[in-house]
Amino acid sequence: MPFEDAFTSFISVLDAIAVGVFAVTGALVASRKEMDIFGFALLGTVTGLGGGTVRDLLLGNLPVFWVKNPTYAAIALTVSAVVFFTAHIPESRYRLLLWLDAVGLSLVCVIGADRGLTANVGGFIAIVMGVITAVFGGIIRDMLGGESPVILRREIYVIPAILGAMAFVAVHSWGAPYSVAAIVGFTLCFTVRGLALYYGWSLPPYKSRPGRKAADVAPQPDPPGDGKETAP
Amino acid sequence: MPFEDAFTSFISVLDAIAVGVFAVTGALVASRKEMDIFGFALLGTVTGLGGGTVRDLLLGNLPVFWVKNPTYAAIALTVSAVVFFTAHIPESRYRLLLWLDAVGLSLVCVIGADRGLTANVGGFIAIVMGVITAVFGGIIRDMLGGESPVILRREIYVIPAILGAMAFVAVHSWGAPYSVAAIVGFTLCFTVRGLALYYGWSLPPYKSRPGRKAADVAPQPDPPGDGKETAP
Amino acid sequence: MPFEDAFTSFISVLDAIAVGVFAVTGALVASRKEMDIFGFALLGTVTGLGGGTVRDLLLGNLPVFWVKNPTYAAIALTVSAVVFFTAHIPESRYRLLLWLDAVGLSLVCVIGADRGLTANVGGFIAIVMGVITAVFGGIIRDMLGGESPVILRREIYVIPAILGAMAFVAVHSWGAPYSVAAIVGFTLCFTVRGLALYYGWSLPPYKSRPGRKAADVAPQPDPPGDGKETAP
Repeated sequence: MPFEDAFTSFISVLDAIAVGVFAVTGALVASRKEMDIFGFALLGTVTGLGGGTVRDLLLGNLPVFWVKNPTYAAIALTVSAVVFFTAHIPESRYRLLLWLDAVGLSLVCVIGADRGLTANVGGFIAIVMGVITAVFGGIIRDMLGGESPVILRREIYVIPAILGAMAFVAVHSWGAPYSVAAIVGFTLCFTVRGLALYYGWSLPPYKSRPGRKAADVAPQPDPPGDGKETAP
Repeated sequence: MPFEDAFTSFISVLDAIAVGVFAVTGALVASRKEMDIFGFALLGTVTGLGGGTVRDLLLGNLPVFWVKNPTYAAIALTVSAVVFFTAHIPESRYRLLLWLDAVGLSLVCVIGADRGLTANVGGFIAIVMGVITAVFGGIIRDMLGGESPVILRREIYVIPAILGAMAFVAVHSWGAPYSVAAIVGFTLCFTVRGLALYYGWSLPPYKSRPGRKAADVAPQPDPPGDGKETAP
Repeated sequence: MPFEDAFTSFISVLDAIAVGVFAVTGALVASRKEMDIFGFALLGTVTGLGGGTVRDLLLGNLPVFWVKNPTYAAIALTVSAVVFFTAHIPESRYRLLLWLDAVGLSLVCVIGADRGLTANVGGFIAIVMGVITAVFGGIIRDMLGGESPVILRREIYVIPAILGAMAFVAVHSWGAPYSVAAIVGFTLCFTVRGLALYYGWSLPPYKSRPGRKAADVAPQPDPPGDGKETAP
């Protein structure tokens, strides 16, 4: 099926782009912390390769993808170096980055779920793998960079990844070709994440209730939907 | 040997319970930090599944246990969601949780050591695997939640896990059936942890001595056995 | 080739020494934080074994090296315990430690790259494996100990590891025997790291430039070569 083959190649290219986009988000955290070039390289590669690395370890797909195909590692390192030497771009970069990150998120939740299906782990774990691939790079980045992990902020970031991975797995299980399932998953994830970015949606926090100690309840003025956004 | 078969099934049930109990401790850290439901899911699943995941990675038992048997992942996610919606239980929950955690600790140090023996790694590494399974979920939870890792607090928490795993491996090596070794290991671990909880035992800290710089020596009034307890 | 066999045995001994040296650096972080003996054991073993563990996981060399050969784990645990009971040595220990750490770094970047070549991953990834083996133990140590990761400080620490691993891989690819390649790699790494220690070299930080928000630009008086040194 030539179209499906071509589509698979197309996805490989997009996968490499997603690695690069996530590496940029890692390198920009290094930039905010005024690190040296090795800090950029560490945070850039960990963010670009981290989610897929955790996924491959859990699935037992070893060696991990960037050891099998060093192009991914080369992309992450190169991107980190480029950001180190060029990060004096205007502030608008930040908004652009959020949208690039949304593209990466949407690609990677589908690709991660597909790796899970290929490893025959069943739909539920395949969805989990899609979500892990999409968000763990960012979690490790934020821990290394001393920032609050993205998953712990009240932003609509994980929901799109879950929805995208679920849609991909569902459409695939209905017998649709890979390309259709991937496009549906990508589109759903990107739409939800894009709406959240555009309208500044955030999630309601956990509300403490009577029965908890007063000392546990810090004042927390953060109404949902207040338009605040944080780096993905 | 029907009894041993039944006992193995019984242990599988207890293993699932331990995953759930540890997931509760993770979700309650998310509750203290007022996270959203994805923070609960992340901290709950990482705590419930983390120790066994690290163990399986180190041993090369891949894919990891919860990919092979997704029930564990489903339990951890469900428990985290339940805590998110019901955590407004009274303060007594905290004390109960410490005891539930002691049950989980005692189960998991034995199960982890048994996985090591099954992988033929020898008694020393089997004990190490029991301890890793018992404590690494909590270490990752505390790092993600921004709390001081449980192993770094002056509490009798690791000693019971070491003793339980050692007792299990020793009794097993003497030719006793799995059930006897497991019961001995569990009982020893639970007894020591229970006594530590009941009497508020803690460990003596490292004392600085002459020859160190004064700047290194922060005042540290923390006499052992002062009854202070911290979350497991 | 008896000499090469003897050299390989010699390297194994040095590898064990490197594990011990790194374990000392981990245990001394535990000492600065006044942890109990389990904190020493955790930080010591994680630092001593962490880099090689990450490398083995990424390469799929499972179980990891210290599960296959528990001597390494025993060394790391023993060293941590010895530091706990004897760390009241004079301040000069710190300077000595920096030099011991330089020896460990130089050994491990070569050994890690060699493991990569043995796994047939190609020269680029072999160099990456050498660097990961050399620096990841320290990164995990600093994250667990709540210190700024060594790779994020402006010190010449990663460059020597990169140069050593590159030299080893290059000389090896030119057909030189293992012993020659290893000695060249070790010597280059140790020389650069030693010069950096002796002269207090550090790296220029990332300089913000026009176009960034003022709020992003914290004042940062840290001229290169100011002789400041931080713990490796």
